[in-house]
Amino acid sequence: MKSNLGKRVIAEFLGTAFLVAAVVGSGIMAERLSGGNTAVALLANTIATGAALVALILAFGSISGAHLNPVVALADALAGGLAWREVPAYISAQVLGGMVGTMLANGMFGLALVSFSRHARNGSAQVFSEFVATFGLLCVIRGCSRARPDAVAFAVGSYIAAAYWFTASTSFANPAVTIARSLSDSFAGIRPVDVLPFVMAEFAGGIAAAFIFRWLMPDLGLAAKDTVLPHRAAD
Amino acid sequence: MKSNLGKRVIAEFLGTAFLVAAVVGSGIMAERLSGGNTAVALLANTIATGAALVALILAFGSISGAHLNPVVALADALAGGLAWREVPAYISAQVLGGMVGTMLANGMFGLALVSFSRHARNGSAQVFSEFVATFGLLCVIRGCSRARPDAVAFAVGSYIAAAYWFTASTSFANPAVTIARSLSDSFAGIRPVDVLPFVMAEFAGGIAAAFIFRWLMPDLGLAAKDTVLPHRAAD
Amino acid sequence: MKSNLGKRVIAEFLGTAFLVAAVVGSGIMAERLSGGNTAVALLANTIATGAALVALILAFGSISGAHLNPVVALADALAGGLAWREVPAYISAQVLGGMVGTMLANGMFGLALVSFSRHARNGSAQVFSEFVATFGLLCVIRGCSRARPDAVAFAVGSYIAAAYWFTASTSFANPAVTIARSLSDSFAGIRPVDVLPFVMAEFAGGIAAAFIFRWLMPDLGLAAKDTVLPHRAAD
Amino acid sequence: MKSNLGKRVIAEFLGTAFLVAAVVGSGIMAERLSGGNTAVALLANTIATGAALVALILAFGSISGAHLNPVVALADALAGGLAWREVPAYISAQVLGGMVGTMLANGMFGLALVSFSRHARNGSAQVFSEFVATFGLLCVIRGCSRARPDAVAFAVGSYIAAAYWFTASTSFANPAVTIARSLSDSFAGIRPVDVLPFVMAEFAGGIAAAFIFRWLMPDLGLAAKDTVLPHRAAD
Repeated sequence: MKSNLGKRVIAEFLGTAFLVAAVVGSGIMAERLSGGNTAVALLANTIATGAALVALILAFGSISGAHLNPVVALADALAGGLAWREVPAYISAQVLGGMVGTMLANGMFGLALVSFSRHARNGSAQVFSEFVATFGLLCVIRGCSRARPDAVAFAVGSYIAAAYWFTASTSFANPAVTIARSLSDSFAGIRPVDVLPFVMAEFAGGIAAAFIFRWLMPDLGLAAKDTVLPHRAAD
Repeated sequence: MKSNLGKRVIAEFLGTAFLVAAVVGSGIMAERLSGGNTAVALLANTIATGAALVALILAFGSISGAHLNPVVALADALAGGLAWREVPAYISAQVLGGMVGTMLANGMFGLALVSFSRHARNGSAQVFSEFVATFGLLCVIRGCSRARPDAVAFAVGSYIAAAYWFTASTSFANPAVTIARSLSDSFAGIRPVDVLPFVMAEFAGGIAAAFIFRWLMPDLGLAAKDTVLPHRAAD
Repeated sequence: MKSNLGKRVIAEFLGTAFLVAAVVGSGIMAERLSGGNTAVALLANTIATGAALVALILAFGSISGAHLNPVVALADALAGGLAWREVPAYISAQVLGGMVGTMLANGMFGLALVSFSRHARNGSAQVFSEFVATFGLLCVIRGCSRARPDAVAFAVGSYIAAAYWFTASTSFANPAVTIARSLSDSFAGIRPVDVLPFVMAEFAGGIAAAFIFRWLMPDLGLAAKDTVLPHRAAD
Repeated sequence: MKSNLGKRVIAEFLGTAFLVAAVVGSGIMAERLSGGNTAVALLANTIATGAALVALILAFGSISGAHLNPVVALADALAGGLAWREVPAYISAQVLGGMVGTMLANGMFGLALVSFSRHARNGSAQVFSEFVATFGLLCVIRGCSRARPDAVAFAVGSYIAAAYWFTASTSFANPAVTIARSLSDSFAGIRPVDVLPFVMAEFAGGIAAAFIFRWLMPDLGLAAKDTVLPHRAAD
């Protein structure tokens, strides 16, 4: 039932491009219109991002799984859902797609296609926030994806909308999106120098959640592969 | 299971009329109440439009497919879902319905039923935005409509809500709606002179997406028609 | 599978009481917190009302159908879904429930349980708006209720959220709610003298939609009752 | 199909921790950004809380039922869904999880992990509001959980979003969350001295609803256990 790798990689590319275009573009629009009221600007940015995630995961989910996030691809590989040899293609498509998404957003608003952000996002509170944000994201994805696969799009869109507000870092929670957001000097931007600690915290949080869920909801990975049905019945 | 063409055309007419009434009417209300805070006005316009799309696609989907958009009708014909000879009736109903929708909105708010908009929306950034907006819309519709047909209403409502913010043009993404919005000199309006470039960009973006999805998710159209099941199994 | 009439009437009572408590209560809270910014107040009122409708229709739908609205009960009787002799009990429960809902809201905010509203809502634009609002509501309900019964709650919540903004009257669209809102002199109120024209327009709009949908989506009512399956196949 | 008690208790712990982190964290962020506009701050707090509930119930529902609330655990035990001997473990995990959630939120925003709130929330209107809020919450949960179990997450998220606005107390409706919110001196806080009346009103409201629904929708509890199918057919 899976599409071939080429189609799945294009789906990941297109999906991540639109996701980042939504994050960055809505940030630009929100900053322009909100007249300095940051709460209203973040509210608009939140609604646009959450809604885009719902639409994009529904649209690309049946082609590639709509991971749109290197941490999610990695966690899926850990769980045996994605072949390890396909992970580099997924992650490359996501990172590249994210960069194109920033350029799309900058272009639509008549800005230079690339401009490095000067928005400082650092300090232990922000980095700890990224750990928590990605930990929670992976809990939501792993918790839904087996029992309620049809609801993953709504769960992820809702989770990120919430996490924009309940984390001090506004929850990037996605290394491809983090890298891409360094390329726009606008509301959603992040200084290139602040990218690495964010990305490391995101991987750490996501992998921690993946291991906890391995125990909470044993999955179809690795050793269990040839005893799928008995294994599930024994849960 | 399909209704006859007469009923489907009335459904497209009613659905597009209410869609445009929602877009234009909520724009008028938002402008009146927001005291010049454009971000708050666009937020209200966004929520009303996204929510209206969810309700209208759920309501009219089982009658006519609830395309409510000439680009969607055309793409559906390209994919073999709508008979080519029915396309003109669909598009006429949508354009006419949209115009009636503007008149409804103007009438409900005690304005002249028709007043040409003086809201300039032009320049390459805006026109490029319409291309991107409609490209994304068709990705979402084509990506969902076979694998997740029950979720199309939520995907489209969410996508448009996001695209109101992430495109510089606030994502008209619909030629019938674009024409109709030229008939109200209010928040959601567009100068008649700016309509044609928008409409052309919308068709171009939508058709580009339709062709990409023809490869990404081969559909039941044209040549594949008499080998439906083997074709799908071979995906 | 239907509950007995007593249980269904209690469900209609409880559901309408909570619906009105949500409409009136959120209006009071919004007015208190918004510092005169009516757009922000209506946005809060909109989100509370739409979300309450989703929750209440999901909660009470499987008991009584969660009509929560005399026009919906009447239209359901016209379509053969509700027995005519049960209509008076439904409508009484809705009207009474609505009144109790206003008293609940007033009580929770420390106001007199009943205070007649001085909020003028009249003129042909407002009354016409109620006709359009209720016409649209019944289109949505009738369009969903057979083909997508599981989505009615989301469709109705979304529709009313949109209609709060796209109609000049902020879409009461419900005679029981209209009567109940005359009993609170707050944001969501309506002068008792303005109630009758609203209620008449609501019934007129709803019944007009019911008759159009009788043709658009022939239902299981009246004459069709003993030929259910052939009738549906012939659609 | 149920996970073992250890896994379910961890799920309740994690879910309640993230729920409280969302409530408290989004309150801190909203207060910081909104520049004194309380309506905008509460709107952000509302969207974050409602969206978090949707995501967390979808994520943890298939493991533990995602009660995340002592009143819900108690009502489930009354209905025979949760064994009485498991109730203390559930409630302890929820209360402890809630406290950790507050510390998470305080930590992410660089505040002291624990600081007793000075936010007074008392008086009969507020306490009555908590009774109404929790009564409604349990109506929604009990109304959905048998007939529409797949929709509980959406119903609960929507209900709480509405109740934040339609109750004078902003609807805590959850003893574990109430206790946890006393540990942060921020937007969502409550003075420790005001906790007990809130908690008592929450239990009273929830249990009242549970008894009404026992009659409205007889469930699988107690005496009915060994006649499950005949009992349901006789409803």
